[in-house]
Amino acid sequence: MTSPAPEPVIIDPVDLAQALIRRPSVTPADEGAMDILQRQLEALGFGCRRMKFGEIENLYARRGTARPNLCFAGHTDVVPVGDDAAWTAGPFEAQIRDGVLYGRGAVDMKSAIAAFVSAVGNSPEHPGSISFLITGDEEGVAEDGTVKVVEALAAEGEIIDHCIVGEPTSAALLGDMVKIGRRGSINAWITVEGQQGHVAYPHRAANPIPVLVSILSRLQSRVLDEGYEGFQPSNLEVTTVDVGNTATNVIPATARARVNIRFNPAHRGRDLQAWIEGECAAAGEGFKARAEVMCKISGEAFLTKPGPFTEVIVAAVEEATGRSPELSTTGGTSDARFIRSLCPVVEFGLVGSTMHQVDERVPVQEIRDLTKAYEALIRRYFVAFA
Amino acid sequence: MTSPAPEPVIIDPVDLAQALIRRPSVTPADEGAMDILQRQLEALGFGCRRMKFGEIENLYARRGTARPNLCFAGHTDVVPVGDDAAWTAGPFEAQIRDGVLYGRGAVDMKSAIAAFVSAVGNSPEHPGSISFLITGDEEGVAEDGTVKVVEALAAEGEIIDHCIVGEPTSAALLGDMVKIGRRGSINAWITVEGQQGHVAYPHRAANPIPVLVSILSRLQSRVLDEGYEGFQPSNLEVTTVDVGNTATNVIPATARARVNIRFNPAHRGRDLQAWIEGECAAAGEGFKARAEVMCKISGEAFLTKPGPFTEVIVAAVEEATGRSPELSTTGGTSDARFIRSLCPVVEFGLVGSTMHQVDERVPVQEIRDLTKAYEALIRRYFVAFA
Ligand SMILES: [Zn+2]
Ligand SMILES: [Zn+2]
Repeated sequence: MTSPAPEPVIIDPVDLAQALIRRPSVTPADEGAMDILQRQLEALGFGCRRMKFGEIENLYARRGTARPNLCFAGHTDVVPVGDDAAWTAGPFEAQIRDGVLYGRGAVDMKSAIAAFVSAVGNSPEHPGSISFLITGDEEGVAEDGTVKVVEALAAEGEIIDHCIVGEPTSAALLGDMVKIGRRGSINAWITVEGQQGHVAYPHRAANPIPVLVSILSRLQSRVLDEGYEGFQPSNLEVTTVDVGNTATNVIPATARARVNIRFNPAHRGRDLQAWIEGECAAAGEGFKARAEVMCKISGEAFLTKPGPFTEVIVAAVEEATGRSPELSTTGGTSDARFIRSLCPVVEFGLVGSTMHQVDERVPVQEIRDLTKAYEALIRRYFVAFA
Repeated sequence: MTSPAPEPVIIDPVDLAQALIRRPSVTPADEGAMDILQRQLEALGFGCRRMKFGEIENLYARRGTARPNLCFAGHTDVVPVGDDAAWTAGPFEAQIRDGVLYGRGAVDMKSAIAAFVSAVGNSPEHPGSISFLITGDEEGVAEDGTVKVVEALAAEGEIIDHCIVGEPTSAALLGDMVKIGRRGSINAWITVEGQQGHVAYPHRAANPIPVLVSILSRLQSRVLDEGYEGFQPSNLEVTTVDVGNTATNVIPATARARVNIRFNPAHRGRDLQAWIEGECAAAGEGFKARAEVMCKISGEAFLTKPGPFTEVIVAAVEEATGRSPELSTTGGTSDARFIRSLCPVVEFGLVGSTMHQVDERVPVQEIRDLTKAYEALIRRYFVAFA
């Protein structure tokens, strides 16, 4: 045992989940949620660093100084409640009814934070280090959250060896799915400027629409790939096209479109950006109208290849739930996209079916089972890597 | 001489133009304009029939019963004044300043009506018949105007042998251009209905945009023709594309576009409609989203081939103005598109440069010269065709 071994502290994960849910921390608000978490971690012997970027509360906490450093990552912020009146329990009351905990954040992801804290409380002795990387800006623009914490830690030389993100990854039953990768995402805003005129005199005008149609036709006709090591094929969607010309006899001056690509690790965002920019430039040739494009890469694709780390997680899930999780790469983006620059990342948490919805809820037994799975994960991790 | 020969009546074309301009007959209003015209024609021995369709005043007047029947066609309605304050003279005052007549309709086309009436007054004796086909619905939707008068006359077996339309066809100087044809026009409204969804789960959605892009790409890539007997090539313009989706992560449900084709006599509207409908049906194959299209043919293309009738007009223009008119088919549509089903049609009138604008205006000398040209036209017509 190389790390300090504090006294065990019994933390009930359901009580802690309720306490966190009762703080209405809708992004970017914190409302004291981070303080509750920090007090619990300090009681467990963690050194806590609050990192505030803009108006966002972030927390990096670590117990131990040795390697390996196993990090749990998550967020205390939640999405808005939506139609308040449609909830059957107050979204910030954290009511338990028939063994089910209701509230915004019950699934995504205050209960998972509580489960990991409780699992750490039940694991007073371990080699290496355990750390927490918690942000208050995952559901918002995600510009002052994990991305900046990761940058700051990397600049300081802080080493995290492996990371588990507590997002709700289970599909129908706890433990049926973990995520070992996510697709990347890029948006492109295309604007074609031409010259307005009358349809009867097209030589005096320059219609931007043929240029835009040509660009979109080229973009949508490319097969990006057929899939990549367990990933779905990369996919491009034109999400809008807008001109807004109401006159049947007028050639418009401007046409706009927006494109989104969800891509697997066969691609890098900057290559896709260069491709889109190239198609926009090429489509303008021979036309009087000119295309301009602005791209934003929201996240690169990543994959944590199956190996010793994923095996630890699979074994822990099997031990606690009796289920063999599918290793999946489906779904939207998460903060895992920022952490993968530091270390291998796997995501595992509750069943996500009610996340972001009215009456978001989780059976309390599922929180206790997740706590057991995280406990097994911690134990098996240090056996494998210490 | 087979037709009755009434006493000559001297009608000053400028006085009559002023009287007509002083009636603010903005479509669909008439404001007594048609009554003024009818009284003049009755004084010239014309039998007048008012044909009211909906709220629109129309007039068919004829002097004589024998063939050939030379018809003058035009409209008493005018477009709105636009920015009233920007006019340097009241738009319905018909002020003459420095030898120039100002007012809405001065060019398009009350002065041309006055010129033809005056020319008829100066031509008391002629074989055959002269007729007037005047509508109050040329500048509006044109549904209760010339198209219905033509239908009614055709149903009655009324024969018109040749028609001259008094639209402002001159480009820079009176007599430099007459129009012997016009392109046709068809609009198509295309709607593609898909299924809304999240961009991360495209298999659960059906994006309508790829189908629409595919349709537009096919439509815009066809070379309709290289021109036709003095016509410009037929031309297709996509005039708008609209989706209106503001969310970068959402696949939209519906996408719409509108297409306009200006076509020469190498095409018929119904063939182009069938082509557009076929492309819309074909583009849906292999997609979950379906395209629907609604077409409206505003007018068929027509051409009055150079021959004895155009030679009469060219000779009359040369006699009165000293200029050899170009036989043109350029520009937008006019009511000539409806009349061509009855007989050959040629358009000739004033210089159009100020039509539909603030300070629409015409030199009074140009009205007098146009009167002389119409007079020569009447004389030469009956020499050639009676
Ligand atoms: Zn989340
Ligand atoms: Zn007109």
